[in-house]
Amino acid sequence: MSPLLLVLHDAMFKKKESDSRPFDTPEELYPKVIIAGFGRFGQIVGRILRAKKIAFTALEANQTQVDFLRRFGNQVFYGDASRLEMLRAAHAENAEVFVLAIDDVEASVRTAELIHKHFPHLKIFARARNRQHAFRLMDLDVRYTIRETLVSSLEMSEKVLETLGLSKSNAVETVRRFRAHDEVTMAKQQAVKDDESKFLQTTRESAEQLLHLFETDAAENLEREAKRRVANS
Amino acid sequence: MSPLLLVLHDAMFKKKESDSRPFDTPEELYPKVIIAGFGRFGQIVGRILRAKKIAFTALEANQTQVDFLRRFGNQVFYGDASRLEMLRAAHAENAEVFVLAIDDVEASVRTAELIHKHFPHLKIFARARNRQHAFRLMDLDVRYTIRETLVSSLEMSEKVLETLGLSKSNAVETVRRFRAHDEVTMAKQQAVKDDESKFLQTTRESAEQLLHLFETDAAENLEREAKRRVANS
Repeated sequence: MSPLLLVLHDAMFKKKESDSRPFDTPEELYPKVIIAGFGRFGQIVGRILRAKKIAFTALEANQTQVDFLRRFGNQVFYGDASRLEMLRAAHAENAEVFVLAIDDVEASVRTAELIHKHFPHLKIFARARNRQHAFRLMDLDVRYTIRETLVSSLEMSEKVLETLGLSKSNAVETVRRFRAHDEVTMAKQQAVKDDESKFLQTTRESAEQLLHLFETDAAENLEREAKRRVANS
Repeated sequence: MSPLLLVLHDAMFKKKESDSRPFDTPEELYPKVIIAGFGRFGQIVGRILRAKKIAFTALEANQTQVDFLRRFGNQVFYGDASRLEMLRAAHAENAEVFVLAIDDVEASVRTAELIHKHFPHLKIFARARNRQHAFRLMDLDVRYTIRETLVSSLEMSEKVLETLGLSKSNAVETVRRFRAHDEVTMAKQQAVKDDESKFLQTTRESAEQLLHLFETDAAENLEREAKRRVANS
């Protein structure tokens, strides 16, 4: 065999001769998870995956941020995920989950558009700045979006309610119900988001429904309490 | 009686004559809650309080944002909470809870300083942009701080872990444990935050501990599984 053929032969068969387990498939060579945007949000997801020894590829478009992160021992690549060649270099075709944690709204939407067009198999988990950003992502079939400050503000609300004298269970239930109502509102707003007057109307109606939701609740509680008293009298 | 005295007399005694309940005290005239910063974060707290019919005073320093919010039926005052006269006008001395939801770090810290000095009785619930911001607030005895994107990123992490094949309980427990570890790390970092090399060291050690935490866990699981098999064999 010529030297070149020998090298090829080695590359193709040597491993199999010395080790009975099969070659790694290309899919196994690349992380299943890509995290685009490694700021405050993406880093938390990355740290949790690392703790569970789940490999990921992190992309961050800010060079200063990349240098800073590497000083803390992070493995992160300098690259703009809203460019197709970068997504290809990160082996998006072999990944399964795409964490879209870019804070800039336009870059985030551009990235979601690229994935929608070129890598529709990817499951996108998207950070949204606000409602409007979430609507644009939902238009691109992103099924999981979360508003970046929402859950912290809900948690604080729960603590404020408790401090004001509500029981823990009442505070928890209030916030749970508020959130469920807010998700329904999001879906309604999504449907009329391009019509300003309808959007305003939907928002006002939703606020009224919210008040009514808790009023009905208060009435039910009173009724239950009255029945309890009658039963005990 | 002269007309002026009659008016004064009416104001002082008429209500008591026609209604046996006592006058409202000044404390009852003002909301117990002040929300400073009525953006994405403060609005959620405000909407939840309104749903529970708990009065609050909202202050927002961005005029465009104030006009926008009023169109949606919000009651919000145009004012800069990082100025003492504004806090006085909002009757901070009669409030109990102060929701510090200003997104600008410097304005947020200035407001916390004013409250620390002039209204130390207020219970502050503070939104923090990041760790460094949280440290500065903690230095001012703010007992409740929450990083604004933390809880949304934790929730997304949980969903990512589930999508990658972890059981729901494993995903929930992983995130719960990560967060507890992160809170311990915050306290350690706070102590060395002005010494860069110690801060880096603490951060690295904390990342190693985190890995170890989950490794021990995996070993324990294996051991438990082995015992279970022996017991069933």
